[in-house]
Amino acid sequence: MTFITAADIPDIARGAAILGAGGGGDPWLGSLMAQAALAECGPVRLVTPDEVPDDAFVLPVAIMGAPTVIVEKPPAGDELLRAFSAVERATGRAVTHVACLEAGGLNSMTPIVTAARAGLPLIDGDGMGRAFPELQMVLFTLDGISSSPMAMADEKGNTIVLDTVDNSWSERLARSATVDMGCSASIALYPLTGAQARSGLVPLTLSLARDLGRLVREAAAAHDDPGEALAAHCGGVVLVHGKVVDVHRRTEAGFARGQATLVGFGMDEGRTVELAFQNEHLVATEIAGTGAEQAGAEQAGAEVAGDGAQRRVLASVPDLICVVDADTGEPVTTEAMRYGFRVTVLALPAHERWRTPAGLALVGPRYFGYDHDYVPIGRASVGPQ
Amino acid sequence: MTFITAADIPDIARGAAILGAGGGGDPWLGSLMAQAALAECGPVRLVTPDEVPDDAFVLPVAIMGAPTVIVEKPPAGDELLRAFSAVERATGRAVTHVACLEAGGLNSMTPIVTAARAGLPLIDGDGMGRAFPELQMVLFTLDGISSSPMAMADEKGNTIVLDTVDNSWSERLARSATVDMGCSASIALYPLTGAQARSGLVPLTLSLARDLGRLVREAAAAHDDPGEALAAHCGGVVLVHGKVVDVHRRTEAGFARGQATLVGFGMDEGRTVELAFQNEHLVATEIAGTGAEQAGAEQAGAEVAGDGAQRRVLASVPDLICVVDADTGEPVTTEAMRYGFRVTVLALPAHERWRTPAGLALVGPRYFGYDHDYVPIGRASVGPQ
Repeated sequence: MTFITAADIPDIARGAAILGAGGGGDPWLGSLMAQAALAECGPVRLVTPDEVPDDAFVLPVAIMGAPTVIVEKPPAGDELLRAFSAVERATGRAVTHVACLEAGGLNSMTPIVTAARAGLPLIDGDGMGRAFPELQMVLFTLDGISSSPMAMADEKGNTIVLDTVDNSWSERLARSATVDMGCSASIALYPLTGAQARSGLVPLTLSLARDLGRLVREAAAAHDDPGEALAAHCGGVVLVHGKVVDVHRRTEAGFARGQATLVGFGMDEGRTVELAFQNEHLVATEIAGTGAEQAGAEQAGAEVAGDGAQRRVLASVPDLICVVDADTGEPVTTEAMRYGFRVTVLALPAHERWRTPAGLALVGPRYFGYDHDYVPIGRASVGPQ
Repeated sequence: MTFITAADIPDIARGAAILGAGGGGDPWLGSLMAQAALAECGPVRLVTPDEVPDDAFVLPVAIMGAPTVIVEKPPAGDELLRAFSAVERATGRAVTHVACLEAGGLNSMTPIVTAARAGLPLIDGDGMGRAFPELQMVLFTLDGISSSPMAMADEKGNTIVLDTVDNSWSERLARSATVDMGCSASIALYPLTGAQARSGLVPLTLSLARDLGRLVREAAAAHDDPGEALAAHCGGVVLVHGKVVDVHRRTEAGFARGQATLVGFGMDEGRTVELAFQNEHLVATEIAGTGAEQAGAEQAGAEVAGDGAQRRVLASVPDLICVVDADTGEPVTTEAMRYGFRVTVLALPAHERWRTPAGLALVGPRYFGYDHDYVPIGRASVGPQ
């Protein structure tokens, strides 16, 4: 892929929404925004991280906020470019390349929109290799790179430039401003040199998104199981084929938080799996009832909860917990999940840097308040024993 | 006064704290900061608004937040200058004159600190003629002047620059950031041309503060009633001589909010007055008990509350409700008010522009949620009938 055209958008958006692990925004909204920008401004040139020269000035962009709100309050038009320009003014430098902060149905598209409208090349890569809910959760933070100067813009015309002592302070100050701005804001942050972009970006995630989007489309057309096809392609596992029976969702502190309960069907009949999310899916837990099934309580990782049910972590951050429609393979974001959906839940391996002690300190389950360690895919015992 | 020296500081801080109407910060803390800056950098040249040339670039500064917190977490040192410099960078212009955003024990001193350390002249005037709790409550807003670009800095090293669509948005976004920053932040905002400063500033409030500070000091030394001397000097009235018997105070949404109950002593024996505050005193209400005193319920402005007590507004924003020690005349800020203090409560007339319909829409009692109109001093019936 040397250029991104309107025809590429549906596959990229679908695939990026899968990599978004339930977050990263709605792919349909993202597609509309990107296709409008490409129709107006022409194709966007895509370069690999290797092609970015040392003297480049790279700027990732995204939309920040609660996905539940963003789908109802999409950007008005110029917010991304206003945030982008504010960083250029604050640094006194002209950006040479746009980049993706995260992979996601919306946030793989916002950099395409920005690159098209700014007339700049886009780098094939992103700062996470997935989507995460907080700003400091990028590989750049592991490299000691500051998110400042960071800019935010809303649809009303307000702009904020932050210069912070660390990336967690950027998250904290920006999250409050996002809430004031109506729970969504366009942001530009982590201005990078070419060398920083080459070492910090997860390479080729837009190409991967396009491949996954196509894979799913073709598997569904061939009546294959799209979830199994995705797991096989990415070296992941299918956690469960399940029907959504319960969703608790709340917009809280600028995030979409909650949990969903799924009961298995087909080969997973009789199983119950709970997904906990904060914009993205964070932890998938198998819940076994009392009685006969308690025999399995001796399994590694199993824990008997206060209510007598056994809870066993199937997968957790930083690995990607992805939910797709069981038949079509279309990604289901956390804000779109509802009662009755028949889905396949996958776990795909996170980028290797997220699996290091430093990576886990930034994005592991304990950071999010869960009282258990990260269980890598493959070491978790998946499915009924 | 052509120069402000360390010797002027105690009188200015005392007088400005009186004009601060309970807010504007602690005069003792302000004095320490100003005296340290003057000792280090030399006297500050004071110019009247009339002396400011058209091509001047004027920048008011202040500390924003809950006074209850600011006294416990004073600035570390360079925050004011960092906010100041951030506005210079954002505008690309060098500031020529420092100004006061508000009159207050601390916020008449923060511009002195900034002028001393930046080596710039200070304008004798301020944007309110008193202190108010919110950023948009300046005469500049009535002139249609934007607070943007506005900068904020905290003691940790974080800096924020805001560019907003109106001054209420600056207040909203800055207040959230102030809460995140620990309930206090140094701010620089409302960059002004010389012409805007001449028409928008309440002139000579630093000189007035010095005069009031001296008046109180001399009255106390002569065993005169300092409250009566202040009221006479400013064309105001004494509302009550009272003892503080109850203070409800909470730090909420970045403000110090609450109310204080005073019972009269001496010639005011038997009276009860309640002061409601949000950083500054907003409304003074006479509370008459049930029984014999209900005969007075026919008085203009009296209202019988649910508990059978009559409540009558004695004074309200935008007029200045000022509390001073009954014997020494030392100003008592809202955060310093405590049980047992014997105080004199004054009402002083606000600047005439605050008494216009546009002024009252911005700072009148209804803006703050009170269900009554502004009752100007003189038209309110003060004291027992």
